[in-house]
Amino acid sequence: MTYRAPIEDILLSLNHGAGLQAAVAAGHLGDYDSEITAQVLEEAGKFASDILAPLNRIGDKHGIKLEHNKVTTAPGWPDAYQRWIAAGWNAVSGPEQFGGQGLPSAVNAVCTEIWASSNMAFGLCPLLTLSAIDALHAHGSDALKNIYLGKLVSGEWTGTMQLTEPQAGSDVGALRTRAERAADGSYKIFGSKIFITYGDHDMTDNIVHFVLARLPDAPAGTKGISLFLIPKFLVNADGSLGARNDIFPSGVEHKLGIHASPTCTMTMGDHGGAIGYLIGEENRGMQCMFTMMNQARLGVALEGVGIADRAYQQALAYAQERKQGRAIGSTSTGSDPILKHPDVKRTLLLMRALTGAARTICYSTAVALDVAARSDDPKIKADAAARAALLTPIAKAFSTDIGTEVASFGVQIHGGMGFIEETGAAQHYRDARIAPIYEGTNGIQSIDLVTRKLGVNGGASVWALLDELSVIVKNVEACNDPAFGATGPRLRDALEALTRASKYLLEKLGSSTNEALAGATPYLRLFGSTLGGCALAAEALAARDLDNVGDPARYVTLARFFAENVAVQAGALERSVVDSAGALASADAVLTA
Amino acid sequence: MTYRAPIEDILLSLNHGAGLQAAVAAGHLGDYDSEITAQVLEEAGKFASDILAPLNRIGDKHGIKLEHNKVTTAPGWPDAYQRWIAAGWNAVSGPEQFGGQGLPSAVNAVCTEIWASSNMAFGLCPLLTLSAIDALHAHGSDALKNIYLGKLVSGEWTGTMQLTEPQAGSDVGALRTRAERAADGSYKIFGSKIFITYGDHDMTDNIVHFVLARLPDAPAGTKGISLFLIPKFLVNADGSLGARNDIFPSGVEHKLGIHASPTCTMTMGDHGGAIGYLIGEENRGMQCMFTMMNQARLGVALEGVGIADRAYQQALAYAQERKQGRAIGSTSTGSDPILKHPDVKRTLLLMRALTGAARTICYSTAVALDVAARSDDPKIKADAAARAALLTPIAKAFSTDIGTEVASFGVQIHGGMGFIEETGAAQHYRDARIAPIYEGTNGIQSIDLVTRKLGVNGGASVWALLDELSVIVKNVEACNDPAFGATGPRLRDALEALTRASKYLLEKLGSSTNEALAGATPYLRLFGSTLGGCALAAEALAARDLDNVGDPARYVTLARFFAENVAVQAGALERSVVDSAGALASADAVLTA
Repeated sequence: MTYRAPIEDILLSLNHGAGLQAAVAAGHLGDYDSEITAQVLEEAGKFASDILAPLNRIGDKHGIKLEHNKVTTAPGWPDAYQRWIAAGWNAVSGPEQFGGQGLPSAVNAVCTEIWASSNMAFGLCPLLTLSAIDALHAHGSDALKNIYLGKLVSGEWTGTMQLTEPQAGSDVGALRTRAERAADGSYKIFGSKIFITYGDHDMTDNIVHFVLARLPDAPAGTKGISLFLIPKFLVNADGSLGARNDIFPSGVEHKLGIHASPTCTMTMGDHGGAIGYLIGEENRGMQCMFTMMNQARLGVALEGVGIADRAYQQALAYAQERKQGRAIGSTSTGSDPILKHPDVKRTLLLMRALTGAARTICYSTAVALDVAARSDDPKIKADAAARAALLTPIAKAFSTDIGTEVASFGVQIHGGMGFIEETGAAQHYRDARIAPIYEGTNGIQSIDLVTRKLGVNGGASVWALLDELSVIVKNVEACNDPAFGATGPRLRDALEALTRASKYLLEKLGSSTNEALAGATPYLRLFGSTLGGCALAAEALAARDLDNVGDPARYVTLARFFAENVAVQAGALERSVVDSAGALASADAVLTA
Repeated sequence: MTYRAPIEDILLSLNHGAGLQAAVAAGHLGDYDSEITAQVLEEAGKFASDILAPLNRIGDKHGIKLEHNKVTTAPGWPDAYQRWIAAGWNAVSGPEQFGGQGLPSAVNAVCTEIWASSNMAFGLCPLLTLSAIDALHAHGSDALKNIYLGKLVSGEWTGTMQLTEPQAGSDVGALRTRAERAADGSYKIFGSKIFITYGDHDMTDNIVHFVLARLPDAPAGTKGISLFLIPKFLVNADGSLGARNDIFPSGVEHKLGIHASPTCTMTMGDHGGAIGYLIGEENRGMQCMFTMMNQARLGVALEGVGIADRAYQQALAYAQERKQGRAIGSTSTGSDPILKHPDVKRTLLLMRALTGAARTICYSTAVALDVAARSDDPKIKADAAARAALLTPIAKAFSTDIGTEVASFGVQIHGGMGFIEETGAAQHYRDARIAPIYEGTNGIQSIDLVTRKLGVNGGASVWALLDELSVIVKNVEACNDPAFGATGPRLRDALEALTRASKYLLEKLGSSTNEALAGATPYLRLFGSTLGGCALAAEALAARDLDNVGDPARYVTLARFFAENVAVQAGALERSVVDSAGALASADAVLTA
């Protein structure tokens, strides 16, 4: 079955859950005219359904090929990419000065979800180009921007991010790729990188690589890393392509999923050194890379949402069609669709509720980024930046965890057919699995949340967010609608659990970081579940007051189901946060072969 | 890395968690000499490490081939199978009268885990043969037994179970394969079956198919189904092989996992009809099939345990080896193994604790089956049979759910390497995913638990079990060992939540089955978590008193970790059980495309 962008859900989430509408109304987004949001997203949905979704299974089956140092993508891939740039999709949120449409990154976040949902392996390529654009725009010299930025914004060229080496994964500081200063101000780069997404391909005639390397006199660790721009083909003064640069794909990985996305080993310097240009300052490459990584982390979070939504759509369609047995109380004469069985219903509700919760967390992160970038008020900018920083690890880890969970439920709904590759449910299960890993494993996101985000300004950022959630809970309770069931009390309990857990961790951070870290993963889940539950409740409340929502009651049911079945776990998660350090202190004796 | 059977964990679980030792001591297992348990299991572990584990990745890569109506298995497969039968592994629990060793099925349950852990695709073949043996032994005529049973027990021939047709999956009663009575008392079978595991292969010179079909004058639904034995090659009076029977593999599936296990479409009757022999009575095939299915359900449950344990072993080894970054508080000069990071520790503890809990639930089911089969006391036999019936759906669903969860954690621990197929972690993630589906989806197990098992004798079976758990909780509390942390209170809360949820469901079953079914899945998880938590606690208490356990403290830590991080979710699960019907009543409006 094909993919259809769930525009109604998306707009409710973006405008009312994530607060884009309020931010625009308050003037925090400059002159953005939010009237066009729906139109852009409808078009994105159409492109995804018509062009990207049909290539998803083809890409999975064909994968990619590396021959003679060149990667060939799956049939139809280069053509789809050309349509993609022709339709302007690469430039949605790109800077206007360089040919972009300058739309809010929140709008592009929705698009990112839509691309990932229709074809995750395809959407990954522009995702990395966007990160490259951000880094170059923020840190590059005008000369480099003038040559490369327009082509990256349009998508005529794609970008890569090259951090990882065999000994340097999560520990980027351990990298060994080296850079030598050349007489003309450029650099020669030698070394090799692994796990480079779209490190080579045949969809564009040039690729702009962003590579971390170390200068000979650089300090050890992350303080001695510099970022270089290394084009696949050098660019002449007139913008035409020159010589092939000394950076080649020397291997590709055989992966569990996203088969159509080439994952390359890149080798630099076998022919005298790859010519690279410094981005930002020497030894300040990590800062530039963090710009790319935050953008990429939100992008990966949206992959989690996208793949979850796709798995849900496919499972729902199957459950509507597949007839098997009679449901209890059924009055039909033959078999009933399996959707009639309570357990299938609950699984599908769970899939949709988890997806919706993760979606709003991601969109909220994007809205915060937009406000931080576009507001005129320094205090509002700073608060929004802190909000975005706080939400990023939650968005990344919660969304990608539920992405794999929901994809797994999708397989389950299909029964035996789910295990057969032709059905397509299994592809989502395989594709989804990378998202909790790349751009910082979800374990690292939890550590980031606890050690770097929670404690900013003594927790001010967290308390401000929790205060907002508390207003939502009050509104649910005040509305007195029995359709909400136990939503109010469950969310209140969750919020109180999250508050206590946050205080506990802030205290522990001062005395024993390891004890705080023991509970980092359940804390992130607690945070995500509480945020997500409140977001769905806020959307349900908003839907009741809106004219353009077809059936507001459905959003109440979703919010209720999430609160009663997911947010309800908050108390247990809080206890895990607090208790974990005890058992972990004796873990070494258990964890022996 | 290879596989090593965790014999110490296994023996503690089998003898003290699952109560084999007490059952033997009480004389419920006839003359079984439990001294030999350890020796048998050590040998099984050796066979698995030496012969089966090395073929696991080969089988995954090569898969199987169907050409000219014949299936060829992966290189090394037929040879390994011959060693398997030569070593007597197929006959462990087979009836002595037909050449079996007559060991308790609990011992064979451990073996089943070991085979699945080392090579799930291989272990699946004898698993189905065992089911066939059970059905034939229980329901077959002496004539059929004399011809087929010995060969099945030794493994010289393998067995298949053929229920599923495209329109008849979970709804077996919808099957259309038809049987015609022949003049000589045999039958001719026409039709086709799908998803037939090891429906054809080249490891033995004959295959004995057990096929459900419908006679022309049979009543509709499950009451009109008969079970037939259909040999691939007919067997002459002297036991030699005769003509090729009219049952052929006409297709094989391209699956997510267990690539080395052929999943066949079987076609019968293209050449005049497959000759079949009735097992049991006409139209009573479902009863016979249930014999096979219960055995197979426990077997699949053990696949969940096995794959979880394998994923754990591999993840632990990786975490010990892989160095990345410095752990907080580390005094080492270079990078630390990732095992030093609290979040990696907690993930590995969770993997091991979930695996251990599921293991004991499975072994307990097997011990109950043994007592039911071997005790001289009718009351004890009946109680044990009821216990086994109650535990089977929990064992199946809980173990296979945690199998996929643990395999997914295993991928995560490997970081980017986990997504690369060569690493092997991804294979476990793919292989594990079938177990929650086949032999009755886990949703169906929950329904079985709630509608068929919970209410037996007004819940007497459940209350008896909960009373036993309550003794364990008291013992934990009484031991006053601070190393148990919050184990006592967490398990007490879990037990109380389970008790209340059971009462709620028993009440609802009388008034509204659909409302009861709405909470079936969280109820099964609640049951599994409580059982598992108590089992680990019982094992920890036992370990402290045993001389032959290397480090009893490790089992205390495991029990504690499970209670504080898994069993602690009981309260939330109870609330899901009770609350689910509310939101589900409005689900139809949400679950539309």
